[in-house]
Amino acid sequence: MRELLEAVANGSLSPAEAEAELVGYVTGDAGRFDTARQQRRGIPEGIFGVGKSAEQVVELAETALETTDRALCTRLSEHQIEALESALADSFPNATIERRSSTVHVRSPEYEPPSLDVTVGIATGGTADGPVADEAELVCLDAGLDVDRVDDVGVAALDRILDQLDRLREADVLIVCAGREGALPTVVAGLVNTPVIGVPVSSGYGFGADGEAALAGMLQSCTMLSVVNIDAGFVAGSQAVLIARAIDGARD
Amino acid sequence: MRELLEAVANGSLSPAEAEAELVGYVTGDAGRFDTARQQRRGIPEGIFGVGKSAEQVVELAETALETTDRALCTRLSEHQIEALESALADSFPNATIERRSSTVHVRSPEYEPPSLDVTVGIATGGTADGPVADEAELVCLDAGLDVDRVDDVGVAALDRILDQLDRLREADVLIVCAGREGALPTVVAGLVNTPVIGVPVSSGYGFGADGEAALAGMLQSCTMLSVVNIDAGFVAGSQAVLIARAIDGARD
Amino acid sequence: MRELLEAVANGSLSPAEAEAELVGYVTGDAGRFDTARQQRRGIPEGIFGVGKSAEQVVELAETALETTDRALCTRLSEHQIEALESALADSFPNATIERRSSTVHVRSPEYEPPSLDVTVGIATGGTADGPVADEAELVCLDAGLDVDRVDDVGVAALDRILDQLDRLREADVLIVCAGREGALPTVVAGLVNTPVIGVPVSSGYGFGADGEAALAGMLQSCTMLSVVNIDAGFVAGSQAVLIARAIDGARD
Amino acid sequence: MRELLEAVANGSLSPAEAEAELVGYVTGDAGRFDTARQQRRGIPEGIFGVGKSAEQVVELAETALETTDRALCTRLSEHQIEALESALADSFPNATIERRSSTVHVRSPEYEPPSLDVTVGIATGGTADGPVADEAELVCLDAGLDVDRVDDVGVAALDRILDQLDRLREADVLIVCAGREGALPTVVAGLVNTPVIGVPVSSGYGFGADGEAALAGMLQSCTMLSVVNIDAGFVAGSQAVLIARAIDGARD
Amino acid sequence: MRELLEAVANGSLSPAEAEAELVGYVTGDAGRFDTARQQRRGIPEGIFGVGKSAEQVVELAETALETTDRALCTRLSEHQIEALESALADSFPNATIERRSSTVHVRSPEYEPPSLDVTVGIATGGTADGPVADEAELVCLDAGLDVDRVDDVGVAALDRILDQLDRLREADVLIVCAGREGALPTVVAGLVNTPVIGVPVSSGYGFGADGEAALAGMLQSCTMLSVVNIDAGFVAGSQAVLIARAIDGARD
Amino acid sequence: MRELLEAVANGSLSPAEAEAELVGYVTGDAGRFDTARQQRRGIPEGIFGVGKSAEQVVELAETALETTDRALCTRLSEHQIEALESALADSFPNATIERRSSTVHVRSPEYEPPSLDVTVGIATGGTADGPVADEAELVCLDAGLDVDRVDDVGVAALDRILDQLDRLREADVLIVCAGREGALPTVVAGLVNTPVIGVPVSSGYGFGADGEAALAGMLQSCTMLSVVNIDAGFVAGSQAVLIARAIDGARD
Amino acid sequence: MRELLEAVANGSLSPAEAEAELVGYVTGDAGRFDTARQQRRGIPEGIFGVGKSAEQVVELAETALETTDRALCTRLSEHQIEALESALADSFPNATIERRSSTVHVRSPEYEPPSLDVTVGIATGGTADGPVADEAELVCLDAGLDVDRVDDVGVAALDRILDQLDRLREADVLIVCAGREGALPTVVAGLVNTPVIGVPVSSGYGFGADGEAALAGMLQSCTMLSVVNIDAGFVAGSQAVLIARAIDGARD
Amino acid sequence: MRELLEAVANGSLSPAEAEAELVGYVTGDAGRFDTARQQRRGIPEGIFGVGKSAEQVVELAETALETTDRALCTRLSEHQIEALESALADSFPNATIERRSSTVHVRSPEYEPPSLDVTVGIATGGTADGPVADEAELVCLDAGLDVDRVDDVGVAALDRILDQLDRLREADVLIVCAGREGALPTVVAGLVNTPVIGVPVSSGYGFGADGEAALAGMLQSCTMLSVVNIDAGFVAGSQAVLIARAIDGARD
Repeated sequence: MRELLEAVANGSLSPAEAEAELVGYVTGDAGRFDTARQQRRGIPEGIFGVGKSAEQVVELAETALETTDRALCTRLSEHQIEALESALADSFPNATIERRSSTVHVRSPEYEPPSLDVTVGIATGGTADGPVADEAELVCLDAGLDVDRVDDVGVAALDRILDQLDRLREADVLIVCAGREGALPTVVAGLVNTPVIGVPVSSGYGFGADGEAALAGMLQSCTMLSVVNIDAGFVAGSQAVLIARAIDGARD
Repeated sequence: MRELLEAVANGSLSPAEAEAELVGYVTGDAGRFDTARQQRRGIPEGIFGVGKSAEQVVELAETALETTDRALCTRLSEHQIEALESALADSFPNATIERRSSTVHVRSPEYEPPSLDVTVGIATGGTADGPVADEAELVCLDAGLDVDRVDDVGVAALDRILDQLDRLREADVLIVCAGREGALPTVVAGLVNTPVIGVPVSSGYGFGADGEAALAGMLQSCTMLSVVNIDAGFVAGSQAVLIARAIDGARD
Repeated sequence: MRELLEAVANGSLSPAEAEAELVGYVTGDAGRFDTARQQRRGIPEGIFGVGKSAEQVVELAETALETTDRALCTRLSEHQIEALESALADSFPNATIERRSSTVHVRSPEYEPPSLDVTVGIATGGTADGPVADEAELVCLDAGLDVDRVDDVGVAALDRILDQLDRLREADVLIVCAGREGALPTVVAGLVNTPVIGVPVSSGYGFGADGEAALAGMLQSCTMLSVVNIDAGFVAGSQAVLIARAIDGARD
Repeated sequence: MRELLEAVANGSLSPAEAEAELVGYVTGDAGRFDTARQQRRGIPEGIFGVGKSAEQVVELAETALETTDRALCTRLSEHQIEALESALADSFPNATIERRSSTVHVRSPEYEPPSLDVTVGIATGGTADGPVADEAELVCLDAGLDVDRVDDVGVAALDRILDQLDRLREADVLIVCAGREGALPTVVAGLVNTPVIGVPVSSGYGFGADGEAALAGMLQSCTMLSVVNIDAGFVAGSQAVLIARAIDGARD
Repeated sequence: MRELLEAVANGSLSPAEAEAELVGYVTGDAGRFDTARQQRRGIPEGIFGVGKSAEQVVELAETALETTDRALCTRLSEHQIEALESALADSFPNATIERRSSTVHVRSPEYEPPSLDVTVGIATGGTADGPVADEAELVCLDAGLDVDRVDDVGVAALDRILDQLDRLREADVLIVCAGREGALPTVVAGLVNTPVIGVPVSSGYGFGADGEAALAGMLQSCTMLSVVNIDAGFVAGSQAVLIARAIDGARD
Repeated sequence: MRELLEAVANGSLSPAEAEAELVGYVTGDAGRFDTARQQRRGIPEGIFGVGKSAEQVVELAETALETTDRALCTRLSEHQIEALESALADSFPNATIERRSSTVHVRSPEYEPPSLDVTVGIATGGTADGPVADEAELVCLDAGLDVDRVDDVGVAALDRILDQLDRLREADVLIVCAGREGALPTVVAGLVNTPVIGVPVSSGYGFGADGEAALAGMLQSCTMLSVVNIDAGFVAGSQAVLIARAIDGARD
Repeated sequence: MRELLEAVANGSLSPAEAEAELVGYVTGDAGRFDTARQQRRGIPEGIFGVGKSAEQVVELAETALETTDRALCTRLSEHQIEALESALADSFPNATIERRSSTVHVRSPEYEPPSLDVTVGIATGGTADGPVADEAELVCLDAGLDVDRVDDVGVAALDRILDQLDRLREADVLIVCAGREGALPTVVAGLVNTPVIGVPVSSGYGFGADGEAALAGMLQSCTMLSVVNIDAGFVAGSQAVLIARAIDGARD
Repeated sequence: MRELLEAVANGSLSPAEAEAELVGYVTGDAGRFDTARQQRRGIPEGIFGVGKSAEQVVELAETALETTDRALCTRLSEHQIEALESALADSFPNATIERRSSTVHVRSPEYEPPSLDVTVGIATGGTADGPVADEAELVCLDAGLDVDRVDDVGVAALDRILDQLDRLREADVLIVCAGREGALPTVVAGLVNTPVIGVPVSSGYGFGADGEAALAGMLQSCTMLSVVNIDAGFVAGSQAVLIARAIDGARD
């Protein structure tokens, strides 16, 4: 404890880093960032953009970088992304920023991701499923997994799924994102021997819109899926990471 | 009018037949039977077993036979079917009785079904879809259509669908019945050029059970289905008959 | 294959046309356009405006024109329509643009629509049903069908329906659009001998608003409708085209 | 008060009648019967059979007869009706029992119903609507109204409605019962100048079953209905009685 | 017919008036205005502002004034109201404009409202119920009824209801508007002998918000209400007018 | 520990009592009984009859009596109650059995209930609310509270509520049970200064039946209720006990 | 009465104060403010910002200050808060303004809050629950309670709850706010002996979003919670005040 | 092929075994049994008892034993279990029958289950979760996994979870079953580093009953669960098996 405070006093440790070490989180104007999440569950706390101001996103991302060497931000608006890129150019000029749709991953050079010998396949039915798959993908990449992304294999054109069957079968775990009627994970799971996580996507209109038909269909599927909530790419990615760690641990 | 009453008087016309001719329906203790339905829409009124006593089913079926030469009864219990068979052995000993699951079709020898040069394909995902498909099938057979029944091609075993693709493509119209996640009509419609009518079936349990997931999925389908209500095999069959008549009419 | 690449090399085939021929779709910044949809189902992929920028709509429409000689865009905003008209004035100056409500159909002079000897009747209850009927109508016109449009025959003024009965009965297939309580398709189907496709429209307020009452009512209808999702004019139009092709095919 | 107690003492008033006069209700083993309901609202409290034993129904009916000279029992089972008829043969041998479906009205000879110069029209779409209409009808008859019952005019056969138009127009108030899609009150209200009360009936199956589609449709109706809950024939009848009293009062 | 056309030719009849007389409605750019609604049901068609441009509202209101001498516009925005007032200052400078919340009633001097000897009581629970009650009130005033408005008698302060009991009892018909838990019509109907129409109002938040709790509560009410949809002040007013006409007719 | 085992060995402590003391619960064939619930929350675990055999109810009740000197059983069927009474006549012949509707409370003579100087008022709207109120009442009596039960004060007869106002105001805490539209707790809470716990009851039929309208209405109430789930008399009673303890503790 | 009017005449009493004293509320352009609510229930009427203009909020707050010496405003926007602060700087320059999230409490120096010897614990799971807890907190502070606020103890990090257990156990009443799955009140209530009021918070997305999962979970909780509606911090605070008064009253 | 038929001819292969080998399933009177499911997904098809007669269950189980050497039957009634045990005593006298609640696993001596070096932890909150956990457990045991079952650790008694923390942490995968509010998987997943599959159980009553609150809560959980449908122990077990195989495969 004494050491910690002396490190703060002499500037070798920031107050945020010290707070993170002492209580497991950092509290700022933008709210709390849970630095211990990584220790507890092996997955960093995501910074969820909806309902936050651009300033709050920036502050939380900087805290995350300061204490865990990277930041994983989801559901950001264009405006939030611009503010973030502009702020980090000053505060973390050496950081690497990777953007997919509305998800942004930032790494400082100090961050050494683990390297796991596990491949997660991520499949989508169509363009509308992309942002949700992107969210899942960046969670997997943050954890050091290989990702094999197979896009545009919606059930309306069955031959495209069959064309990609080898890639789907080679993955250790599969995340399959689909909106509207959400049949893709059901069809894919009938063709592979690996665990499939279905992710309903909030596309479509009318009855069953906003992903409700897809969620219901995946829960009812006769091909033994596990499921996450509508648009929950982050959760699907996290679940895939936990499975991947178990597989990778067994490989050693 | 006078002729009609004289025919009743001399017994060459039953009172029920006369009532049917005059007002288009026959009213008895078991309720009204709509004999004009056949004229108006080309499809006989079905006798729906749920909520009726066996006696009421028998009475309505006999009225139907008397006035339209056949009776189409749906959702009958075992008890109702036994009572019907036993009663008809007396009252219509020459009638032909055809049973599929809970649907029963009775024809008197006088009934000459039309013969249409049209094939309706009826596909099911699994055993639970059978009774609903049976209901649709007997409606089509009553109207003189050819029916090609393709069972057990659920999406969990995709190769079975692909094995039957030629049969599915040769039909003029397709009725596809599926419960649980209801993905089968979506997959089939992506593989054929003909109109597909999706029929959700009330199987499954938990969220989206009782056919709600299947209904929502079919309404959301990106492969352009038209849909009927959950378990509405009768409606799907009727719609197929109307389409078949339009096709057959054009053939002449 | 070699020929194809040479055609690209010498400019007689655009890269988009070549990609379409090779894999069945074209991938650009605005997403994927499925050029093979036309082959698989006989109906072009619609370009759905909701959630897209005006630039994305323009790019997809130009791709569609380049590869399939026409573009069918639905649910466009005023801003998207203006951008589209302005862009096409440059890129496809000879194209014909036809607009109905928020649906826009563009044809290049090369497009030769099929001509089918089939009439689709499209009926609406009131003004609010217009845009959904327009969507269905342009799908039918794209496929070369005759369309007989019967507007403003809502059930609140029954005599107007009866006045138009002959026109409704002469159509080969009927699409009937209705919002609020959605009773119109039920009433119409009781008066005709042809297949009726009910389209619930998202008008009204309070309980059952957004088309839910209309959808439920059409699914429950005792006059044997098939149904599409709320506001799904595109799906209803497509289903009518498939039925019309079957009829027209039989005519030959 | 003293008089009342003396009347009880000398047997010219039963304890139940005295309790009714003093506090407005009678409490027995079968629960409370609200004798003052009649005074407060002009409509007797109904004895609702569901969830009660036959003994409880009998006791409540006898209390009602003792204190208000008649009993109005709804949703009785066959078993409850038999028990009631058998018990009343002993306890109120001079009472008149009128049964419609599951509704039973009992009058002692002392009951002098009011006579109102008002006609309530009650229309149904089909057989399944009968028991709900019966409930409404007996409420109206109890209050001395004329009832004109128009059955089997479902929208599937529009000409039957038009045939009965004069009768529907002559009624002062209309109660219209319909299940499944519930379009009948909407159609009727578009044809008459009188207030229409729509009663959704719990028929049908699948989505919108149990009267939900009918309720939603009536609430959304563009022909200005007021509505009661699903199967609430008693409430519709009561509302008609209140309107009829207002009309009759104005006639004087 | 000839006369009519000559009247148009010589300018004594506008084309819109002639169209109204011939077919019962007038069709313009803003859609159809149903001039015959008044004849059929005794209540003018309302001009519903939601989803219309200010120009469309103005055009429809002018058509209504031209053909029926008044216009009843509901759910107008501030912007629509300003545009309407400004346009009518030119086109109908002698018209009288009466505004309540978002409802606007316009009368030309030619309009002679009927005068009925009937009082409709309109009660509200609180401020949020005002606009819905205003809508109902203007419908009643348009039809020549007396309106007695009793505001701010929510059940949270029961003594205020009791204070106004005499006024509530003197009305011939009652419209009671209430949001949140919607208990007011239930409480009021237990205190009066007249028909009560409950109007659920879309206030509140959380579970049962948007008027759903109020609607469900009114449909479940044990004090025999009839009900209209959420916020449907127009429908409640219309139903009150129909009842009032029946009462007034009986008075003659 | 040693003492405990010796007590078991010499028979002065039953094995069940020893298990309860050691781990806080007793596990038998009928499942686990949580003896520590009483310590943790001050309220005994209820024995919920639904889904259990009569034998299981008996075993759990005997375990409860053995380890906590009383048993509180809810939602028992007639058959379960008879079996319980018969079994306890043998095993606990000195126990006192108190029954209210489907709730049964059994006390052995050893049980000394606490005596709290706090009164809980329990009000019901009508007969159907009785069993739920009974459940709450027995929980309160078990904890030594005074209960003032005020029955049959439904909002349909407002004067009865006002007649009982003094009693309602004198209670320290109020539990108010109501089904159908559930307005009673709202009305009561507007008249008193004490905390009111609303309990929705699953009566009624049609839309909002099974207590949903009542639950929604209580959650929306503008008179500041706290609420428990539908029919959750046990939870309401427990909450009242916890509040009563806090009050009683402050009294000392 | 005379005195009151003279006081108004000579200016020692404002018209608003006089109206409040005479009828219990003040009516202005912004609607009615219920000054008697305080007397009836001991809790001032809150001024709910949603759906009001900034001017209306200001007027109502000034009326509240004038008649009850403080104003409690909830769900204000930034714009409304700025307008309020700016207006009060003029009209009530000596007032104290306390803001928490979107809730604002204003006190004039004349206001002497009661002082109760009762502590309310308010716990939250995370940042998103803050504004709802703030609303509850200011209601408690207005009534003179001690508040012990325990933030950021979500169930995802169980040790933080256990760390704060002593504080949670020392409170007399607990308000526990939680969104998403809403498990926190269930976990807390299993650890304390005091009444717990659960407040579901409208965070999360997908199925069960907007607080529905949290509400359902709290109603189903096996640890005996009472519950308020989603985001109803005001109601929870009011309920805690009523319980606290009962406790404090007993202390005297 | 020839060999196969000869084997049938000489009786060394049963017709069912031959059919299974040729087409992957066996069709009998009781429906189809999918013998290839095992090959495709590594999990045998379960025989679901609901809606089947005892005879059908027996026939399917015998087919399963004949072709895959074991049968896994779920949701059997007491009657079905007795019939199964009695029939197998004759037909497969050497088979081993293992029953857990309503799930039955039968193995013939020929069946050699795989042996995987993976432990699945299965936790339940209380007695009601047992049958669902049993279903999952037998699926895991069929596949050769070690199962560590941890019962009765509901969140109402948090210390019991903490007592079992080591066992929960040692498992490679966790299945956590919970009804009512379903908080247990959320709490457990916050304490471990392994993948957690949440299984909602259909216990509880009132709002959110039948597992809906639990399902919604698990989908909303902030501790990164994957979820299966309500009561879907079979699906959860299957998903755990697939994960376990991936881990075991990596171990080799």
